[in-house]
Amino acid sequence: MSIRTAKSQWNGTLAAGKGTMNFSNYSGPFTFASRFEEGTGTNPEELIGAAHSGCYSMFLAALISGEKLTPESVKTTATVHLGKDEKGPVITTIELNCVVKCDGLSREKFEELAAAAKAGCPISRLVAAADIQLTATLL
Amino acid sequence: MSIRTAKSQWNGTLAAGKGTMNFSNYSGPFTFASRFEEGTGTNPEELIGAAHSGCYSMFLAALISGEKLTPESVKTTATVHLGKDEKGPVITTIELNCVVKCDGLSREKFEELAAAAKAGCPISRLVAAADIQLTATLL
Repeated sequence: MSIRTAKSQWNGTLAAGKGTMNFSNYSGPFTFASRFEEGTGTNPEELIGAAHSGCYSMFLAALISGEKLTPESVKTTATVHLGKDEKGPVITTIELNCVVKCDGLSREKFEELAAAAKAGCPISRLVAAADIQLTATLL
Repeated sequence: MSIRTAKSQWNGTLAAGKGTMNFSNYSGPFTFASRFEEGTGTNPEELIGAAHSGCYSMFLAALISGEKLTPESVKTTATVHLGKDEKGPVITTIELNCVVKCDGLSREKFEELAAAAKAGCPISRLVAAADIQLTATLL
């Protein structure tokens, strides 16, 4: 269906070095501090969160569209937890918190579609190694 | 170790609607065309590519740092393939193409560390549902 590329570069050691991540016309610096502490810059985990959040919102909008309804808005926040296990750093959990406005959508159908989007959106399928937790609200 | 958040919003139907994905101070528009065709905008797949590429570069730099060496540069391109199977859209393959400059690093040790980073970097562990293919070159 599609092939997409992105790039990165790291210069120097882990502790003293620095990196950049690039896609389209975006270039985001990252460092040890921006990843594991509270330093300025981005980190891979928030890019994963953006990708999962965006994919989930689009997929749920697609499922609602399939019911011949037009979602006014599908808003999703993804919270990505980076922890550690015996093998090293690991993303343990991704929480999706989704809020939908859509005239004519029943609560029962909404809950069915929200769960189907959690299972079926391609980023959910990709990151199945993490525990994906969904909270979905129909306004 | 850390908790990161990102957000998205989709408005309207799948075909006619549009979305945005947000993290830090980035806001990237996306549409059906920017995801599945060649329209202007971003898409979740290139964010996944940026995250995986960045995590791999940083992790490999960390492993090289552990050998008491300083990598001058670790550059990685990630190519993300979105396909389809019987369940729907799916990310089938992520190719990582990595090029490293580092004085004092033997080819044998480089190959060992490049493979270890492929297996152990947290984004590789997260996206284990895809076929991850690595090409690593020491300059």
